[in-house]
Amino acid sequence: MMQPFSFEVVARQGSARAGIFHTPHGDVLTPVFAPVGTQATVKAVTPAQLEEIGASLVLANTYHLFLRPGADQVAELGGLHTFMGWEHPILTDSGGFQVFSLTGIRKVDEDGVTFKSHIDGSVQRLTPEVSIAVQEKLGADVIMAFDECAPPYERAYVEKAMERTHRWAERCLRAKTRQDQALFGIVQGGVFPDLRRYSAEYIASLGFPGNAIGGLSVGETKAEMYAMIEEVNAVLPEDKPRYLMGVGTPEDLLNGVERGIDIFDCVLPTRLARHQSAMTFAGRLNLMNASHARSSQPIDLNCTCYTCRHFSRAYLRHLIVAREMLAATLLSIHNLHTLLQLMRLARQAIMDGCYVEFCAKFLSGYQLGDFTEAI
Amino acid sequence: MMQPFSFEVVARQGSARAGIFHTPHGDVLTPVFAPVGTQATVKAVTPAQLEEIGASLVLANTYHLFLRPGADQVAELGGLHTFMGWEHPILTDSGGFQVFSLTGIRKVDEDGVTFKSHIDGSVQRLTPEVSIAVQEKLGADVIMAFDECAPPYERAYVEKAMERTHRWAERCLRAKTRQDQALFGIVQGGVFPDLRRYSAEYIASLGFPGNAIGGLSVGETKAEMYAMIEEVNAVLPEDKPRYLMGVGTPEDLLNGVERGIDIFDCVLPTRLARHQSAMTFAGRLNLMNASHARSSQPIDLNCTCYTCRHFSRAYLRHLIVAREMLAATLLSIHNLHTLLQLMRLARQAIMDGCYVEFCAKFLSGYQLGDFTEAI
Repeated sequence: MMQPFSFEVVARQGSARAGIFHTPHGDVLTPVFAPVGTQATVKAVTPAQLEEIGASLVLANTYHLFLRPGADQVAELGGLHTFMGWEHPILTDSGGFQVFSLTGIRKVDEDGVTFKSHIDGSVQRLTPEVSIAVQEKLGADVIMAFDECAPPYERAYVEKAMERTHRWAERCLRAKTRQDQALFGIVQGGVFPDLRRYSAEYIASLGFPGNAIGGLSVGETKAEMYAMIEEVNAVLPEDKPRYLMGVGTPEDLLNGVERGIDIFDCVLPTRLARHQSAMTFAGRLNLMNASHARSSQPIDLNCTCYTCRHFSRAYLRHLIVAREMLAATLLSIHNLHTLLQLMRLARQAIMDGCYVEFCAKFLSGYQLGDFTEAI
Repeated sequence: MMQPFSFEVVARQGSARAGIFHTPHGDVLTPVFAPVGTQATVKAVTPAQLEEIGASLVLANTYHLFLRPGADQVAELGGLHTFMGWEHPILTDSGGFQVFSLTGIRKVDEDGVTFKSHIDGSVQRLTPEVSIAVQEKLGADVIMAFDECAPPYERAYVEKAMERTHRWAERCLRAKTRQDQALFGIVQGGVFPDLRRYSAEYIASLGFPGNAIGGLSVGETKAEMYAMIEEVNAVLPEDKPRYLMGVGTPEDLLNGVERGIDIFDCVLPTRLARHQSAMTFAGRLNLMNASHARSSQPIDLNCTCYTCRHFSRAYLRHLIVAREMLAATLLSIHNLHTLLQLMRLARQAIMDGCYVEFCAKFLSGYQLGDFTEAI
């Protein structure tokens, strides 16, 4: 039988690599940014618009779908691909991160986590086995091991949560039954290099077809984040895709790729879009700013997305001021396109052997935080 | 110079006609339903999606755009077509209806109307001359005479408002300067057949390139509405397009076409979409109903819209329950497609000489109000 998943590295430059991740629903060219469809929809964007942007891998959240509409219901309706109308690769997370970030009251024990639903306050429970069962019912191409994301600086607790995450990873592997899904392991360890190395060794030893780095972009500094990526990627196998979870600023994407990351996901582009902020290769633009009220230029003159091809900053600002839903749609299209395009250009730069120069040029023209000048 | 506007009747059956309305931004095949883009956007739908649905004529509201972002700003940005990214025909209303329906405090005098903005309470004034000046700056293909829409049953006031509407229509004609816009007159007269006939004669005598019926669908019975359409259309010229303003239920569209109407507009399909209601050829479907939670079928098995080709009722209900914006987008696409498709089928039936049978068949299978059974 042909292997349903495989990862080819087609070019390298330093630690950065350009690859192809083959899945049952198509190939993912890496490095790649995966838009997040929390509740089985990338907010305000249709699947047809996602295809036009060039999205390949889309993420959905197990925690949200477990609570609503429920995994059985999605399974009965043909699984997540059919349910949400996305016949391309899908990744579901394990629910672990949301349990620890969205629910107020929770109790972690060796077996799993009991928590109150953020929707109706009902008491719910996820364990490694339940998470895998739910993800098998949802039917994404890539599923994730159930992990505990601890606050990054409390060493004693970070170590305890990491050890438990390792035991849970083994239970996830044992619980898994479907052959058409790839289960990825998750490295934890907070901001502690030795714990990160240890966790990477442990997770790598379990032989997952892909590995993720969890517990970053949760309050640590950028220097700490990049250092942790380096520690972990020095250990994780070269021939498996590496996924940095929950990271989505342009500078973090480029720095992650430089350090050997292949896959990223983040709600940032769509969340910023719903808060009037456009992501560009020059920085962020707050479209509510009055300076845009009479601007006939697009968000970014060099951008080829639907929004930039058809609409002025003045029109987008009008939609925002008038509280029109189309603002969120058009800005989401643009912001997602920006990150997908950044990864496409990064991939080409790696293949052309000029990734270092590409990053240096990008970062020299890039302003952190919001700005409102003309690009 | 070639006439920028002309109307060809290509087929008739009784009073119903199939036509082609030529405008500077393209042809409108009639009968036609025009989606409403109140604030220069059809709510939750992109122009690309409108094109895919097959929309030709789109309406925008002068009242809203006059207040925000302002006509000068739209003009500076290249006019409404460029501003909203719709390079097909656009119609703007005069602002009259909104002044009388959306503003609490207003004062009507012979010269015009003073009112408080529903946005910021500021005192504003519209007159026939201002309305035309604003509509010329907005730059739609079809612009409307400034009229007073009176409560339909108070005869003395209806008559007074009608007479004033006639004087305002003449002032609009005198105020108009652009040759690339068609100014339509508006017939008023409430529910009074003699006033309606008189108003139709008066408006027809002014020689507008198209004529509209205003002041209907504002609280009168359907029988009264249809009777008024008959009175007016018996008088309005056959060789000019006839536009029934603000009407958008399937049954009213078909009854209007039967009585010689060519153009309709209404917020109903997009407003229903934002309130979980799907319009179908069998009636309305409330997608919040729990009976849809596990339904893998589309809203309408016979519908060819994007939504029905890709998404189940269960998914749409999930989006609604989860308060996802995509619900409004997908339902708006479906509802607009339903009315546009109904008018395309009506046109074909007129051309095929079977409009009476078409209407009878449609109305026999059509249930008024909401229903939740499988279609």
